[in-house]
Amino acid sequence: MSEPNQLGAKEAARRIERGELDAQTLVASCLERIAARDAEVRAWVCVNKEIEVSNPEGPLYGVPVGVKDIFDTADLPTRHGSPIYAGNQPRADSAPVALTRMAGGTILGKTVTAEFATFVPRETRNPRDLSRTPGGSSSGSAAAVADCMVPLAFGTQTAGSVIRPGSYCGVVAYKPTYNTLPRAGVHPNADSLDTVGVYARSVEDVMFFMDALIGLPSAPTEKPRIGMCRTWEWDQVQPEMAAAFEQAARQLDAKEVRLPESFRGLRGAHTKIIWFEGARSLADEYRRFPQKIDPALRKRCENGYAIPWPEYAAALHEGRQARARLEEAFAGCDVLIAPAATGEAPAGLSSTGNTAMNVVWTLLHVPCVSVPGMASPSGLPLGLQIIGRLGDDPRTLACAQWIEGALR
Amino acid sequence: MSEPNQLGAKEAARRIERGELDAQTLVASCLERIAARDAEVRAWVCVNKEIEVSNPEGPLYGVPVGVKDIFDTADLPTRHGSPIYAGNQPRADSAPVALTRMAGGTILGKTVTAEFATFVPRETRNPRDLSRTPGGSSSGSAAAVADCMVPLAFGTQTAGSVIRPGSYCGVVAYKPTYNTLPRAGVHPNADSLDTVGVYARSVEDVMFFMDALIGLPSAPTEKPRIGMCRTWEWDQVQPEMAAAFEQAARQLDAKEVRLPESFRGLRGAHTKIIWFEGARSLADEYRRFPQKIDPALRKRCENGYAIPWPEYAAALHEGRQARARLEEAFAGCDVLIAPAATGEAPAGLSSTGNTAMNVVWTLLHVPCVSVPGMASPSGLPLGLQIIGRLGDDPRTLACAQWIEGALR
Repeated sequence: MSEPNQLGAKEAARRIERGELDAQTLVASCLERIAARDAEVRAWVCVNKEIEVSNPEGPLYGVPVGVKDIFDTADLPTRHGSPIYAGNQPRADSAPVALTRMAGGTILGKTVTAEFATFVPRETRNPRDLSRTPGGSSSGSAAAVADCMVPLAFGTQTAGSVIRPGSYCGVVAYKPTYNTLPRAGVHPNADSLDTVGVYARSVEDVMFFMDALIGLPSAPTEKPRIGMCRTWEWDQVQPEMAAAFEQAARQLDAKEVRLPESFRGLRGAHTKIIWFEGARSLADEYRRFPQKIDPALRKRCENGYAIPWPEYAAALHEGRQARARLEEAFAGCDVLIAPAATGEAPAGLSSTGNTAMNVVWTLLHVPCVSVPGMASPSGLPLGLQIIGRLGDDPRTLACAQWIEGALR
Repeated sequence: MSEPNQLGAKEAARRIERGELDAQTLVASCLERIAARDAEVRAWVCVNKEIEVSNPEGPLYGVPVGVKDIFDTADLPTRHGSPIYAGNQPRADSAPVALTRMAGGTILGKTVTAEFATFVPRETRNPRDLSRTPGGSSSGSAAAVADCMVPLAFGTQTAGSVIRPGSYCGVVAYKPTYNTLPRAGVHPNADSLDTVGVYARSVEDVMFFMDALIGLPSAPTEKPRIGMCRTWEWDQVQPEMAAAFEQAARQLDAKEVRLPESFRGLRGAHTKIIWFEGARSLADEYRRFPQKIDPALRKRCENGYAIPWPEYAAALHEGRQARARLEEAFAGCDVLIAPAATGEAPAGLSSTGNTAMNVVWTLLHVPCVSVPGMASPSGLPLGLQIIGRLGDDPRTLACAQWIEGALR
């Protein structure tokens, strides 16, 4: 812990408040790290040259924050990972950015996003192994936090876009209950799934950030009752993750739980919903600039426009029915654990990886946290996913913090 | 039916398709009506001088549509009813606008909205009685459709902003199930409540518009089983509405149903949620331009920031619990009916009226339709509200159409 950029957010804020660290020194240290590393990692679209210092009384005073480039910023362009938005300068800050500034935080810059926060990869590399994907769509945010370029960052999840990059890059990723953080000024992907989330290098820092943003309280941390959930997508899990997950479950004394049989169809339901809604969220871009949309994404739009409304409505109904049976799925446990991704970060940058461990929980709207602490035989990070009940975010984070300690 | 501007959307589209009516003639007729009347009604913020004709194959080809001024439009400014956004020219169309154009519709202009789609009134008057409010926040859209300036228009509802103006102005208003129409490019008010809705002068036209936008199918129309629901807010209902509603319920052979006792708290829960989320959706405007926000709205923001997260979370939980008991509330009926507003449009323009008949249904996320057909002793329109199950929009609209005919 020799350099300020390596400090966690809470510790940095504490030192700044006590006068042991200067806010500008911290920012300079993060900028130095970016200058040294980002030619290789490629996590940032742009970095703020004129750091605005606001609200010295705020809990986040002096803490730098990275922002996925689908969040509007009044002082930096917002490109949504798309050539359609080259040079786009929003008039207003998105609500998560404004809440960060209100709390005294510093917007360090914009991080690379997959095209419109979908599956189309951009240039970011995994800082743990530059030949691999960091995951997506919140690629730059996860990579930047992992590489100690910034202690906190925003992402969004519609399929697995917060949790999976957290697993691949070895950082803590938190997707709250649906609609916990405000979406004003964040480019939509699929309205009934989109969730703003955050990255940090510890669960404590996630809690610190969430408290500063919306006053999310802390819950007491005791040994939780943990359910081990292989999910209905277990056949997608790679050997390195299966072995590490089963070992972690034993270590955590987790009891096996099975999701209701009726949850089997949820992954397919999620696909219908993201295709149907995703096509309509991009209606303007698809209508006016079809040639500037990646061909695979354009194809997803076409698939989405072709889905008959009753099929889409049936998929939403399946999601609602499953949400009503969540209590049964938890089987008396405080939280469930599942793999945060199907395996280690895949080689190459042509895909952001498999979302099979994420989409069902996203559709269920439940809070999920990925904590590092497991590793593949090749030494790459693997995330353990902690899943809580709807709206039970404080307890879910408390359990994640307990598990993070137990895995250390 | 002498002038084209008086035609319904479906009839106008049919005539255009058959070559019996020219698209430009229809637009010209609507513009003429606006020129003649809008100095008094004040429904429009701006009207499109260069009408773009797109997709002659589309079902909406040639049909003019009014758009509430919180929906981004790439060819017209979008002011959100706020001086903060004077001269704001968005780069993209909001998704509902783009879907309208894809279907061949013509964006006629932007209609007056209450400030940021909240309770702060703007200049629009009720075309049925210029001394009265048209309701809000979708004031201009409801007034423009009522005054035959346009056959279709978009609104949004977070409390009662689609249904109530429909009741006051005597038009059909439809708030779909939450997340039915896409929200991309629509300024948020409260994420967990905001719903895009539409206005027309018949239920048939609403169905026609929804089919063109997202392929919403029609359901068979038979005499529905109707539940008469006085709601837990019956003490707010004015004598003219109580009498008309009870008479309509008798005429429709509706059986009385009572909402579960646990629904009593939902109106209060809605207030907590709209305050908490509403403050955060406006975080940027509140942080940078507090003096340009109406003092009453600024006060609502302050109230919202002061709500502790656990109180907000408890309100959301109450909403979820009630949604899980909806089947019980419907008591075997196809739809419920309730007043669409507490009474006739109030005198004056200083308030947009009472939302007590709307907020519970908005929190429940269920589809609601207001149909005209009742009147107060002074001859002002009163809307009957038809409420359906979550996702059961086709049947809800079919029942509303049957009821519309029965009340005629």
